Amino acid sequence: MNMSAARDVPGEPERLVVIGADAAGMSAASQARRLKSAGELEIVAFERGHFTSFSACGIPYWVGGDVPDRDQLIARTAEEHRARDIDLRMRTEVMEIDVAGGRVRARDVDSGAESWTSYDKLVIATGARPIRPDMPGADAPGVHGVQTLDDGQALIDTLTRTRGRRAVVVGAGYIGVEMAEALINRGYEVTVVNRGSEPMSTLDADMGRMVHEAMEGLGITMVNDAEVTKILTGEDGRVRAVATEDAEYPADVVVLGIGVRPETTLARAAGLPLGEHGGLLTDLAMRVRGHENIWAGGDCVEVLDLVSGRERHIALGTHANKHGQVIGTNAAGGYATFPGVVGTAVSKVCDLEIARTGLREKDARRAGLRYVTATIESTSRAGYYPSASPMTVKVLAERRTGRLLGVQIVGREGAGKRVDIAAVALTAGMTVEQMTYLDLGYAPPFSPVWDPVLVAARKAVKAVGQPT
Amino acid sequence: MNMSAARDVPGEPERLVVIGADAAGMSAASQARRLKSAGELEIVAFERGHFTSFSACGIPYWVGGDVPDRDQLIARTAEEHRARDIDLRMRTEVMEIDVAGGRVRARDVDSGAESWTSYDKLVIATGARPIRPDMPGADAPGVHGVQTLDDGQALIDTLTRTRGRRAVVVGAGYIGVEMAEALINRGYEVTVVNRGSEPMSTLDADMGRMVHEAMEGLGITMVNDAEVTKILTGEDGRVRAVATEDAEYPADVVVLGIGVRPETTLARAAGLPLGEHGGLLTDLAMRVRGHENIWAGGDCVEVLDLVSGRERHIALGTHANKHGQVIGTNAAGGYATFPGVVGTAVSKVCDLEIARTGLREKDARRAGLRYVTATIESTSRAGYYPSASPMTVKVLAERRTGRLLGVQIVGREGAGKRVDIAAVALTAGMTVEQMTYLDLGYAPPFSPVWDPVLVAARKAVKAVGQPT
Repeated sequence: MNMSAARDVPGEPERLVVIGADAAGMSAASQARRLKSAGELEIVAFERGHFTSFSACGIPYWVGGDVPDRDQLIARTAEEHRARDIDLRMRTEVMEIDVAGGRVRARDVDSGAESWTSYDKLVIATGARPIRPDMPGADAPGVHGVQTLDDGQALIDTLTRTRGRRAVVVGAGYIGVEMAEALINRGYEVTVVNRGSEPMSTLDADMGRMVHEAMEGLGITMVNDAEVTKILTGEDGRVRAVATEDAEYPADVVVLGIGVRPETTLARAAGLPLGEHGGLLTDLAMRVRGHENIWAGGDCVEVLDLVSGRERHIALGTHANKHGQVIGTNAAGGYATFPGVVGTAVSKVCDLEIARTGLREKDARRAGLRYVTATIESTSRAGYYPSASPMTVKVLAERRTGRLLGVQIVGREGAGKRVDIAAVALTAGMTVEQMTYLDLGYAPPFSPVWDPVLVAARKAVKAVGQPT
Repeated sequence: MNMSAARDVPGEPERLVVIGADAAGMSAASQARRLKSAGELEIVAFERGHFTSFSACGIPYWVGGDVPDRDQLIARTAEEHRARDIDLRMRTEVMEIDVAGGRVRARDVDSGAESWTSYDKLVIATGARPIRPDMPGADAPGVHGVQTLDDGQALIDTLTRTRGRRAVVVGAGYIGVEMAEALINRGYEVTVVNRGSEPMSTLDADMGRMVHEAMEGLGITMVNDAEVTKILTGEDGRVRAVATEDAEYPADVVVLGIGVRPETTLARAAGLPLGEHGGLLTDLAMRVRGHENIWAGGDCVEVLDLVSGRERHIALGTHANKHGQVIGTNAAGGYATFPGVVGTAVSKVCDLEIARTGLREKDARRAGLRYVTATIESTSRAGYYPSASPMTVKVLAERRTGRLLGVQIVGREGAGKRVDIAAVALTAGMTVEQMTYLDLGYAPPFSPVWDPVLVAARKAVKAVGQPT
């Protein structure tokens, strides 16, 4: 085992070590490099996988055929990072963080060789790991996660080789519904097995019901309230069905889309502070709490939810990039903060758009808030304009104060990104009455004269005004 | 001339008189009726035209053929209003407001009969009138405005009868570019003659330049820096060309899209307060300043621009509806206020989307603000996602404070309504740095990992940070 040069050598540049070379880690490295030259700051990044800076969110569209080439999902290659004076070590897994010694122990995945690297500043961007059900058959050939590009390639290989056309998706969150679309696009008969009462448990069940109906309209078989108990294999050892307590669903391929957890094994072993969701806890500058020279961001941290005032875990590339930006600025001696999230998410299944921001009813109750709800139907464009499509908007507002708490939208083209109106209003702490008079873009091809989000806000104003 | 019953008769309902039965007037009437029954509040509305509650914004799409039937543009017919106990008198023009006497003099357009009607409460919603150039030939057959449904019908009749296929549009604002699209859709060769240096003077010229190029790409001939001096007619008296100082543009049909002014002839004669743009001045409850029982809204009023702190005139159906809502609530004894606008507008020419909110550079200078600008290119969806289309976003931010001052967007599908993000941020008084971390909806089919508006905000942050 080699030792790197001890740090704090006069005249030598400081060294920034980054663990994990995906969105958060490499955004941090790139931003630090923008602010400090190689003569001022050495940057070493370790990545255990084959790829760097890739869009995990794009995997369903690659599998589904919308994105023809894997390399399109790679925002910046290892070579591109190296050309910017970032010492990126691929296929090199960090095995240990020695916080007291200010160093990390890394292992070459292929050769097994290990070495210590000292750091002045450390960025932990270890991402998330998919939840793999602990059940018989979960590792059988034909059962796939879709977390990494390697996962995506393995699934595509299976889909290419497999003759059968029956797919079962386990889980009906974002990954589950996006993979259902991908498999429909590839000509599969798709069954989605879902533990919850409706798909998209990130929505209230009344809105999830609309997603359920739309998915069935697309020919997807939705099985709700069903816990997968085991994955059954055939004589060849390959998957042949997914079993719940009540039934068996034949499957030539199974995709696991049950969600992810923060990957904080290293951080936990190093005694760094973790929150109730298992993610690293940071301050607003994305510094690990209690550690002056360690930052963390991306899917391995918990973030402050500005509406509930509590920490959440949200694995989403857009947050990871922002965290990286903040970390890179601070690690290079600048100043930036990440204020928190309001919990915005948008997705689609074929032409159905699904969006949410803020709190669901159960989130509001859990946060101790009393609320009213209002749900309305409207259209994406003026009703008389061609291809105006229906959308449903649900608003939650706090009782008495009328403060906006959350918005959920289900509709067709033009529905999803309308959630941004509510995301900004939530960030600003607006009431639904203030929202009612927002000066939003209006012209018949773009919106009815009252934007659907405002129609919902108006209805919520009335509900707020009623006696509790 | 008949006199209506004197007001303030004990036991009789109050009377609300509305002048103008389009968006603002009938929204006010409808909202007042929702809150007060006919036994409590009598509502009389006068409309000099043939139609009520129609979408003037929809006329270009009716002329262009996207909306097949005129009646689709009528949100609510006279009969529907009457069914809700609103005494709507069509083809009846109010000729005078007697403020001291609390009454209006109205004239039956067809019979010429006049009568006075007393009011307890008055709503002025007289709208706007198109600017008609004071030049020879402006009233010739074949020259059309597009302000009312009657205007639209007359234009369609001309287009149906005319054999020639050359159209000239005078003016390159919203109406001008939308009419250019409508005429292209009907197979015309379209020339747009524009007084400004670029089309869409509601944008800065650098953004207008992109609209110019896109319009030329659609086969529209753009003539900038050109003042129309006269409209030339043939031996049959019909239009045959549009003349500027430098050139003549042959025309079988001419559409005037030069803009509108507040229609405040009645208000001016009655001594009501008008602003520098000729619109009525109101308080935040949409009450005419200095008049307890008179409200005004829609295209005949000036509105407070929340960014510049000054009054503006904006003729837009979405504001008119909101004004009506506020007026109806207040006139019925409730309480509501219209806080002002940030100047959001969105439009399209074929597949080019054009949006703006807040201040242009010249607005900022006029308001005494020092500012920085940042312009970026991005895409509507993740770059690798099919049909990701380019868009340009320009941001203005105040020097030193970094407060957002305005956003302009030109792009294809998915560009226009992104302006809402900025509209809400402007309303909330956010800085561009605060915007950078907005939690907007992200998924590859909806947005790059940094939404284009945030990319522009980030660039503006850097500009704000530079020495002035």
